[in-house]
This record gives sequence, structure tokens and C-alpha cells, in this order.
Amino acid sequence: EKTATVANWASRTTIGGYGEHHFNHFKNKDDQVDAHRFVLYVGHQFSDTVRFFSEVELEHGLTKDTADGSGPGEVELEQAYIAWDFTKGHTLTMGQFLIPVGIINETHEPDTFYGVERNNVESAILPSTWWETGAMVSGEILPGFNYNVAVHSGLAIDPTGNGAVRGGRQKSAKATAEDLAYTGRLVYNAIPGLELSATYQYQADVTQGAAAEGEATFYELHARYQIANLTLTALTAEWDIDGSTFAANGSDQQEGSYLEASYKITPKLGVFVRQSQWDNRANSAVDTEIEQLDVGVNYWLTPTVVVKADVADQTNANGDAVNLGLGWSF
Amino acid sequence: EKTATVANWASRTTIGGYGEHHFNHFKNKDDQVDAHRFVLYVGHQFSDTVRFFSEVELEHGLTKDTADGSGPGEVELEQAYIAWDFTKGHTLTMGQFLIPVGIINETHEPDTFYGVERNNVESAILPSTWWETGAMVSGEILPGFNYNVAVHSGLAIDPTGNGAVRGGRQKSAKATAEDLAYTGRLVYNAIPGLELSATYQYQADVTQGAAAEGEATFYELHARYQIANLTLTALTAEWDIDGSTFAANGSDQQEGSYLEASYKITPKLGVFVRQSQWDNRANSAVDTEIEQLDVGVNYWLTPTVVVKADVADQTNANGDAVNLGLGWSF
Amino acid sequence: EKTATVANWASRTTIGGYGEHHFNHFKNKDDQVDAHRFVLYVGHQFSDTVRFFSEVELEHGLTKDTADGSGPGEVELEQAYIAWDFTKGHTLTMGQFLIPVGIINETHEPDTFYGVERNNVESAILPSTWWETGAMVSGEILPGFNYNVAVHSGLAIDPTGNGAVRGGRQKSAKATAEDLAYTGRLVYNAIPGLELSATYQYQADVTQGAAAEGEATFYELHARYQIANLTLTALTAEWDIDGSTFAANGSDQQEGSYLEASYKITPKLGVFVRQSQWDNRANSAVDTEIEQLDVGVNYWLTPTVVVKADVADQTNANGDAVNLGLGWSF
Repeated sequence: EKTATVANWASRTTIGGYGEHHFNHFKNKDDQVDAHRFVLYVGHQFSDTVRFFSEVELEHGLTKDTADGSGPGEVELEQAYIAWDFTKGHTLTMGQFLIPVGIINETHEPDTFYGVERNNVESAILPSTWWETGAMVSGEILPGFNYNVAVHSGLAIDPTGNGAVRGGRQKSAKATAEDLAYTGRLVYNAIPGLELSATYQYQADVTQGAAAEGEATFYELHARYQIANLTLTALTAEWDIDGSTFAANGSDQQEGSYLEASYKITPKLGVFVRQSQWDNRANSAVDTEIEQLDVGVNYWLTPTVVVKADVADQTNANGDAVNLGLGWSF
Repeated sequence: EKTATVANWASRTTIGGYGEHHFNHFKNKDDQVDAHRFVLYVGHQFSDTVRFFSEVELEHGLTKDTADGSGPGEVELEQAYIAWDFTKGHTLTMGQFLIPVGIINETHEPDTFYGVERNNVESAILPSTWWETGAMVSGEILPGFNYNVAVHSGLAIDPTGNGAVRGGRQKSAKATAEDLAYTGRLVYNAIPGLELSATYQYQADVTQGAAAEGEATFYELHARYQIANLTLTALTAEWDIDGSTFAANGSDQQEGSYLEASYKITPKLGVFVRQSQWDNRANSAVDTEIEQLDVGVNYWLTPTVVVKADVADQTNANGDAVNLGLGWSF
Repeated sequence: EKTATVANWASRTTIGGYGEHHFNHFKNKDDQVDAHRFVLYVGHQFSDTVRFFSEVELEHGLTKDTADGSGPGEVELEQAYIAWDFTKGHTLTMGQFLIPVGIINETHEPDTFYGVERNNVESAILPSTWWETGAMVSGEILPGFNYNVAVHSGLAIDPTGNGAVRGGRQKSAKATAEDLAYTGRLVYNAIPGLELSATYQYQADVTQGAAAEGEATFYELHARYQIANLTLTALTAEWDIDGSTFAANGSDQQEGSYLEASYKITPKLGVFVRQSQWDNRANSAVDTEIEQLDVGVNYWLTPTVVVKADVADQTNANGDAVNLGLGWSF
């Protein structure tokens, strides 16, 4: 009877999680230890075709209220959706989901990528972790061709700020919804080891009415190819935003790209090198592009527990650092 | 042996949850998308007669610290109690529990009620979700007659504010406990389909010593009758608070009521209409009563996954809205 | 197949928790009801030798953002580590862990100690709950002799404050890591019923560069002896911090100790008496030592559900109180 009780909830409800601790030795500021991310997953299978999935994150290990806003962390609902396989091979996702874009945004467990910190192109340009609330249809068109089409809450970039897209994420927390956004993605993975992905997004006004214009188009392309122990990755993304507000500081174009090569010396030990460049004010008269070279190593104690070390060298910015990390997922 | 391990914890500890996403098209302000509620339940069975239950909620999807207090959300412990069946049919509940009042307060999973947002009478007058910390005895007196008797932490209404009871909830978070409150409820459900419920509460000083007077009595009555696919609900509640502080703006009387009719067209599809009125300053010289008519539809994708739509039309206030919702519980 | 699914996650991932509600009748301020602590444990067994453990706490039942910093609670990651049994009898712990010191710091479930509130010596001097991020090796040297050696993030005491060590805890939340700390502990428990423990810590600069000097040494010693139903506990601890900054107000020495006797009248009912004294400015010219006498009772409804009552009488401070508590762990 006890076993029946178990089956009753634990066969339908599942718990998981991931997390990462970071030590950063910065060149230009104090070294830091941080419980950067701690995540719990909760899922539930309502029926053969309807399921729930969620992700709650405690960032920086501590949220508390202060008078000056110096509390270090956040508690964030990053995913909370109902997925319904409405027909064979096609799924309707309703609720709060991750935008189908890039590599890190949907798959961010620390054991799945190289480098202690997530790469800056996917943080500053995509801008990961990026979730919105709405509806998405996903599925397979042809063998090896997968699609996503979504309508969802949009960005709300404060036009009095620096115009960077990352600041426009409303995180589905009392988000202004005067203007929705539309996203589509195509993924091709028919050839073993190869993944090609293209995402396009349109939003009629990324300021939600706060500025005169703000029509935005966004695309992201990436390719990943794994040949034996070598993996090569290339990613590029670009925003084009209309209007004099954004044009004033050059943030009407925001773009970035990176190339990464990684090699697994043994199943437990891998090394990587990554060359990135990104610019949140690509149309400004001054040179605002940041370049970064990362070189590092991952050691997997188990397939989903990883110890990381890397060196980051930046051009045009003060982000030089030596980083150590510990991550896990289950 | 693994199965034994499972039985060891998962047969005694259980996890559940519920949540709801809302889209509100407001007549008088910006539309909003919000991860309104995300809840985890954790329970544990200590013995055949002693169990634990808890509910933790992340409201509005994000808590973070800001200098101006603009962080959108809260993390709230809503329930955390030990229930002890001290004799057959009678239970002692100790700790933090939901006040036994109304319909929504104890049963607020979105699949159990009509309307995207909870009704305003139970929010503004009861005031749901309303939890306190103390001790409660519950059980069955006669077949079909159930009771609750509780002594618990009380409200602390700031007499310099508008006097509304909702603002007096201390949420058991470093709550002032100079003055406790006493609650009793009787429920009659012997006739299939019918529920009659009456709650009474007394608190000697709802200001916890902050004002000269504040003796408060509260009652709530409701009836629900289900006949085949039709369900009729009526609820009324009233506060009477002594003292010139509350009398000054008419908040010495606070009251509300609603009538709701719902009809299940199919097991998955239901429609409803609700007429509400409530007034947190019922004794004021000016007319401060708000009336609201709600009409809407629920579609249950599975028995505990629901998509909702409704229209709200208010008199005497600016709350007109068209709402869409997605909810789940497990 | 469902059973297989259960085994797949619930045989490796485990959930637990603890919590405590407090009612404090204070002599010199308003009485208080508080959901003081609500904790979830999540663990995962990655392999026979590698496991994960974590503890997340919601303190004071509610976190929300306010302009004046009056939000009552915190969400805290208190533990999140990977433990690797790298050889028989020895474990490497990496990540965020509890400092191996005292009694309460590592074992703080309410059913394991007497008194509604944790004792002030372990809060003000040790300072519990005290976690840091780093690496620790633990194991058995000889039968009955266990050790811990750790290097980890250090304190960052603001030299413009009162110098108390408790305020220096950075909680691994964007913690300044210019100066690490080193901790060692030896535990002797070869004789049944007896535990002897000694912890030593060194940090070169507990101000992380904010003051001219701040070299700190810390030791803690405790003994616990259980003879039939009687348990005797003695604990003492002391900080010595170099530099004129701390010497200016006497916080260059911070020390405390307590003696506790408890007796189990029945397996469910126990009584205790505790005499404590502590001083965070032990080298000041004025007498800043606080003494406290606690007398109380624990009643275990089940082995891990406890109801508590005690009386606290302070000398040299205003902390006199009568306390009631309810606690659980699972």
C-alpha cells in the first residue's frame, strides 16, 4: 500500500535541480565568491499528453530587503508552463517558457557548457536567460527539421536608459503587455553531430509605448558540429530597433558573435577556447565593441558534476578575470 | 533496496503545487502579463495521527531588492502546520494555518473556481488569503456538522491608514502578538450537493494597541448548492470595529457579498456569472461601495489544468477588465 | 514502468525539511508571533561516492521589497555542496557548507535542542548559522577521532560598525574574497555518550582590506556527556582580532560560554537549564558581558515534532522573555 502511495505522486511528479558556485579573481575589482545560481525543477505529468514543468531559481544565494537596494539576490520563476501534445509530433506550450534562441538560453545546466560564467554574447545580446509568457507551437516538420512558433509578452526597454536589450526583460513579473512579440525558430539536426538553428523575432514596440518608435527585429543563427572529441560552435545575433531614441546612442543596432572550439581529452576532461565580440551600441560613433578571449578546462567528477577553471581576457573593457566554478545538475 | 529507499522518504513526504498566469486587459491602465502565483506544497506523515503540511508561494514571479521598493513579488509561507488527530474524528492543528472562512481562503487552486482573478469580496473583506499562527481544533459534531475553533495571532490594522482589514494581515512574519483573535466555524453538508457555512471571529483590539479602540467582530456566511450541472453560490461577510479612529472614515463597518451561478456545459467546459458588491468604508457619508459583474468561461484541459477567460465590469471604480488565465494544480 | 520511473528519480533524489514557529512574550517590547524558520532540504546521489546536499531557508515567513528596508524575511541558501568520498573514510566537500564548529551550527533541527530560541553564545560568538564556500576534507584518523580541514571564504566585518563577528558573515552572496579563512576541527567520540570537539580558525584579515589590520584567530571547545537520561553540555569560544580598529571599542576580543543540563523525564518529555554568558566587546573598559539563564521544557509529540516552552532571564540586557515554540523536521 505504501508503494501504491509512492506511485501515486512520485510517478507523476518529479523534482530536479542544478546550481553553480563561482570564485572570480578580477583584475580590476575585489575577488568574489558567489552562490551564483541554485535551481529547483518541479514537473508533473497530468496525462499522457499534458504535462507541467517549472524552474525556480535563487540567484546569488540570498534575497533580503534593504533600504538602499543592496540585497544581493533574486528569487525568480524562470519557467512554468503546460505542454500539450495536441497531435503526434506537435506540442502546444502555454504559460511561461524560455524563448527558443541560442544555446545557453534553453540548456543552461553548468555541466553542459564550457566556461565558469556563461558567455557574454548570449547574455548581452540574446539576452539569456530570457523567458516570456504566451503560447508556442513546436514540432517536427520533416525528419531532422524542427520548428517553434510563439506569440508572447515582449520587452519593455526603458528609453531613458542605455537602450540595452537585457534591461528590457520584464521576467513576466507584472509585465506591461501593451505590445506582444512574435518568435520563430527552425532547427536542422538530421546529420549526426550537426545542429543548425535560426531564430527570428519581431516586436512592434520594444518600449511598450514609452518612446515614439521602437519597432524591433532580431535574428540569431548558430551552428554546432561535433566530430569525435572535437566540438566547434559558431553563433551570431543582431537586433535592429527603429527610432531616434535608440539611434541617439547607437543602440538601434545591437549585435554579437562567438566562435568556440572544445576538445575532450578524456570523457572526464575537456578544454576549450572561445573568441567573442558584442556591442550593445553598434551604431554609435565611438567604438563600443567588447572582445573577449576565454581559455579553460572542465573536469566532470560525474557526468553531471563539473569543476571548471578559465581565464578571460577582454579588449575595450575591464572584465579580465581568472574564474573557478563548481556545478551540478540532476 | 532502491525501492526500499524510495519507500523510506517518498511514502511519507509528498510534493504538490499549483500556479496561475494572468493576462489582464485593463480599461484604465496598461495591459499586464503576470506569473501571479506559483506554489509548492510539501507534506509529511510523521505517524498515523501526526502530519505536517506546508505551502510556499512565489507571487508575481520575482522578488528582488530595490531602493524604491519597486520589486514586484513576494515569497510567502502561507501554511506550515502540524495536524494531530488526537481522537477519532477530531484534529488539533498547531502552527500557521488558513483561517476557516469563505470558499477561496482554504481552497484556492485555480481549477476549483471560476474567474481569472479571485473574487474581490473574499479578497477585500475576508481578506483572503488569510493565514494566522495559533492552535485550532476541528472535527465532526454530528454526521454532516463540522466545526473549527481556533485561537491565533490577530490583525494589526494601522490606524493611520485607510482602515481596510486587508492591510492588517501580518502574515505571521514578525507579527505583533499583543492581542490574539478567536475564530469559530460551523459547516453543514449532510445534504448531497449542499454546503452551508458560518464563521465568526472576535479580536479585542485589531490595532494591537496602536489606537484607542479597535474591538472587532466579524462574521461570514455562505451557501453553495449544486444541482446536476448547475452550481449556485451566495456569500456575505461583515466587520464591525469599535472606536473613533475607524469611525472617522467609515471603516468601522466593512462588508461585502456576492451571488454566483455556474453551469457545466460539458465536463470540460463551464460558464459563470457573478454579481459582487463590497465596501471597506461602509459607514462613510460618501458612497464607497464597489459593484462588479463578472461573466466568463473555464475550459479544463485536464481535471486540474484550466484555461479561463472573463469580463469584469465595475461600478464606482476603475476595475473594468478582460482577463485570460492559465492555471494548474497537482 | 511507472515504478521504474519512480526508482529513476526518487531513489536518488530526496526531499526533507524542518521549521519552527515562535511566540515570544518579551518583557520590554511587544509580543511576537513569527514563522521563524522554514527549510527545505534537497539531496541527490550522483554515484556511490559523489552526492549533493542543499538547504534553502525562508526566514520570518515573508520576503518582499520595500522602500525603507522593512521587509521582514530572507530567502537564504545555507548549504549547497558536492561531497566526494575520494577514499575509504575520507570525504572532500566542495561548495557551500556549514563551518564545522559548535553544536547548533551543523545540527539545528528544532527537535535536536532545548530552548525555543537557539542559544545566544552560538549565535553571537560562533556565529551560527555560519556557512562559507570552499573545500573541506573530513574523515576518521583513528577509531573515535574525526577531523575536518577546510579553506573557505572569510568574514568581512565592517570596521565602521560595532565589530561584532556576526555582522561579518557574507553568506556566500556576492561575497568579497580578497582574504580566505582556514578552519580545522578535531572530534573525539570513542567513549559512548561522550563527545569532545575543538575547532580552530585563522583569517589574515577579517575586514577584507577595509581596515589597517584584522588578523583573527578563533577557537571553540565543547563537551557533551550523556549518562542515562541526563545530558551535560559545556561550550566555550573566543575570537582574538588584531588592530586598533577593533581595539577601539573592545571588539578585539569576543567570547562566550554556556553550561547546560537536560533531563529526559520520559522519552517524550525533557527539561533543561542553561547558564550562558557572552561578550562581543570583551576588551572594552565598560562591562558589556550579557548573562542569561534559561529554564524550559520540550515535549516531543513524535520523535521529530516538538513543542517547547522556556523562560529566559538576562543580566545586563533587556532580553527577558517567556517563549513558546513548535518545531518539526523530516
